[in-house]
Amino acid sequence: MAVEGVPVEPVGLGAGGDARARDLDRHVFHSWSAQATPVDFVLAGGSGSWVWNEAGERWLDFSSQLVNTNIGHQHPRVVAAIQEQAATLTTVAPSAAHRVRGEAAEAILDLAGPGFDGVFFTNGGADANENAIRMARLHTGRDKVVSHYRSYHGNTGAAVVATGDWRRVPNEYARGHVHVFGPHLYRSEFWASTPEQECERALHHLRRVVESEGADSIAAVLLETIPGTAGVLVPPPGYLRGVAEICRRHGILLILDEVMAGFGRAGSWFAHHDEDVVPDLVTFAKGVNSGYVPAGGVIVSAPVRATFAGRVFPGGLTYSGHPLAMAAIVATLAAMREEDVVGNARAVGEQVLGPGLADLAARHDVIGEVRGRGVFWALELVADRATREPLPAAVVGALKADLLRRGLLPFVAENRLHVVPPCVITPDEARTGLTIVDAALGAL
Amino acid sequence: MAVEGVPVEPVGLGAGGDARARDLDRHVFHSWSAQATPVDFVLAGGSGSWVWNEAGERWLDFSSQLVNTNIGHQHPRVVAAIQEQAATLTTVAPSAAHRVRGEAAEAILDLAGPGFDGVFFTNGGADANENAIRMARLHTGRDKVVSHYRSYHGNTGAAVVATGDWRRVPNEYARGHVHVFGPHLYRSEFWASTPEQECERALHHLRRVVESEGADSIAAVLLETIPGTAGVLVPPPGYLRGVAEICRRHGILLILDEVMAGFGRAGSWFAHHDEDVVPDLVTFAKGVNSGYVPAGGVIVSAPVRATFAGRVFPGGLTYSGHPLAMAAIVATLAAMREEDVVGNARAVGEQVLGPGLADLAARHDVIGEVRGRGVFWALELVADRATREPLPAAVVGALKADLLRRGLLPFVAENRLHVVPPCVITPDEARTGLTIVDAALGAL
Ligand SMILES: Cc1ncc(COP(=O)(O)O)c(C=O)c1O
Ligand SMILES: Cc1ncc(COP(=O)(O)O)c(C=O)c1O
Repeated sequence: MAVEGVPVEPVGLGAGGDARARDLDRHVFHSWSAQATPVDFVLAGGSGSWVWNEAGERWLDFSSQLVNTNIGHQHPRVVAAIQEQAATLTTVAPSAAHRVRGEAAEAILDLAGPGFDGVFFTNGGADANENAIRMARLHTGRDKVVSHYRSYHGNTGAAVVATGDWRRVPNEYARGHVHVFGPHLYRSEFWASTPEQECERALHHLRRVVESEGADSIAAVLLETIPGTAGVLVPPPGYLRGVAEICRRHGILLILDEVMAGFGRAGSWFAHHDEDVVPDLVTFAKGVNSGYVPAGGVIVSAPVRATFAGRVFPGGLTYSGHPLAMAAIVATLAAMREEDVVGNARAVGEQVLGPGLADLAARHDVIGEVRGRGVFWALELVADRATREPLPAAVVGALKADLLRRGLLPFVAENRLHVVPPCVITPDEARTGLTIVDAALGAL
Repeated sequence: MAVEGVPVEPVGLGAGGDARARDLDRHVFHSWSAQATPVDFVLAGGSGSWVWNEAGERWLDFSSQLVNTNIGHQHPRVVAAIQEQAATLTTVAPSAAHRVRGEAAEAILDLAGPGFDGVFFTNGGADANENAIRMARLHTGRDKVVSHYRSYHGNTGAAVVATGDWRRVPNEYARGHVHVFGPHLYRSEFWASTPEQECERALHHLRRVVESEGADSIAAVLLETIPGTAGVLVPPPGYLRGVAEICRRHGILLILDEVMAGFGRAGSWFAHHDEDVVPDLVTFAKGVNSGYVPAGGVIVSAPVRATFAGRVFPGGLTYSGHPLAMAAIVATLAAMREEDVVGNARAVGEQVLGPGLADLAARHDVIGEVRGRGVFWALELVADRATREPLPAAVVGALKADLLRRGLLPFVAENRLHVVPPCVITPDEARTGLTIVDAALGAL
């Protein structure tokens, strides 16, 4: 491969190698895609910020898979915790107490800060949002949920209709969902020209929709703290505080979706800790255990928990608080704390990725805007800087293929290249990645 | 404890023991329950059909937790497979090919039989049903989903509204769901007095609802092959064939939910293999890997897959085809095959549980009916055999507590005691369990 990195560990998967893995893959029905296109990218192993296939070709992971391996691939402490828990007890009904489940909840509450009083565990982000929406509806006795058009909240019934992007449109079978435009100055829906104006107008827009829908009918506003797949849309200062104020005034719950933004990605434990806002419910998944075992959940405020003190909470799932997932959470959070993985993400963002991406933008006209913080960045790729016309899909596709050829695994969404490596990436690895991106942009 | 069984392995969780686990549990927000009631039952380990707490007290698991540990607790081969995969690669994006994911899909398709052409993986049963419903709606271009009142299909947006039992009622925020009564002779909704009559009338009822809703508006009929939590309602011979015939006539897809009934529970790999019916989509979870790692999925027929050959399937989730879950599936299915775990479930049902429960019914008036097969049984507990009035909740609660005291972990739903041990239970263990149930019923 084109880059030097960690030594490749032997994979040793026997005859056939990647071809056999590709062949077996024809039995798999794939998400968000047409099935006739065969998958030709094989992954077999990983370590830290690197992944490789069965033949030992390796890539610097600038995707964190689906932006979930915050602690990097195969962190030995998390792997060991999973193996130990597997040896002890792999599965236990949610209704029994199991020590590591309580420890995981306690560790998450510690990070969430005061005001929260319980964690409901799920298998991923979608069912986390499902259950947060359920709590909000039952707590308020109201029905509607307001969320952003530029958002993704998961693929299940209510989560996918809360989602605002194209993935909602073929799936609209739930009622009570309303969408608004959030702030996005680069492609403003409000004819704004400054961040202050964008913020103020986005809040005005939200306020008018809330009033027009009937504030008393709205259970929750559900937002990604930093909309992720939609383009790492860091909100302008004051936006989330303004949203919280609208919610408070009308008895609407604020649910912040930290599935992608949380647990180090944006350079802090929770992205909303940098926004001076206290939501009523926080949903999480991905980074909480880097996806080593499927897990997600809802962090519940004391008043919402009180609603269900004597009243049955009508939600649940077989694997709520699954022991392997919980062991992975406890080990992940402990290792992240002790190794200051969150501090690393923030520092790499401030010292390498931020300046480095700005430098790329200064030299490549195809970059229309750079947005982000921590290890959570997006490059908006445009055909024309003046009109901001998105780079055509075919060109973006060619860029993606070229990055792969050059040894970098990218995360591409629409006309954007997201730069979302593991939070453990070293400054040198980050620079290696930027060099590859630079070369690929130059070759466009 | 009151029973002899496997030797208790040392738990060694240090000071505090179960009390500490219970204390930590206060941070956990629990499913399907009021939060003010503290959890006082701790589980720390298990082996085969046995589970124990930190103090080493042990129980014969007649619940399989949430009816999921079909292969028993801590099967060494599945534990080892999880540990090995953890050492190799714990997480990989769904869009890459990864060998064990293809192997898991191939193994499941092998068992499903001809006509199926792909497996879409999810994290559990709810999202399996969500995605099956999505496929059916997009394949047919229709909206409505017909399911049974006596059913449970999961807690997410669409799955919970497809659910017919009380858990649906506080959660009805999706449109397009219609419910019918299924056959249940003991509490017939059709004034029937024989299985044949119940079957014929239930089919008539379904046919009339389909016609009255407009057959052309119906995407799918979604049924548990054997409704599980609703009371192990084994359908009368011919019912599912009749449903399939109604579906076929109107271009409606038949989705069979085998989340609880599949993978050995009912004494066969898929319960519908005993019903001479070929569904369009099969959903699974639980037994596929005994819940050792969260997993579920949809087995897709060739025509449905063809619909999405060139058209994007608009569903997906971060942990679709999660490597640990896949490794657990491959190992579970291989071990179940080689150890004939399914044959054991069938034999224990035919030789021990069936006759043994019939014997209990002959001696305890409180048993109104015994239903089931394999290791999938329910005792309908009644206050009065003539009126079939359900046993009051307080008495059922007392029975549950007494069974726990006697060393048996029961599965109780409404006025029923479900007898759902692991599929690996030995005839002797099954007899031990029946002896405990006998004693507890005698003490009522
Ligand atoms: C912000 C956000 N919320 C929710 C989800 C859904 O999570 P999952 O795929 O685990 O269901 C995602 C997934 O990408 C996400 O980015
Ligand atoms: C028949 C059936 N379908 C679906 C589900 C939902 O599965 P999960 O709890 O994994 O979402 C269950 C759970 O008990 C079930 O019994």
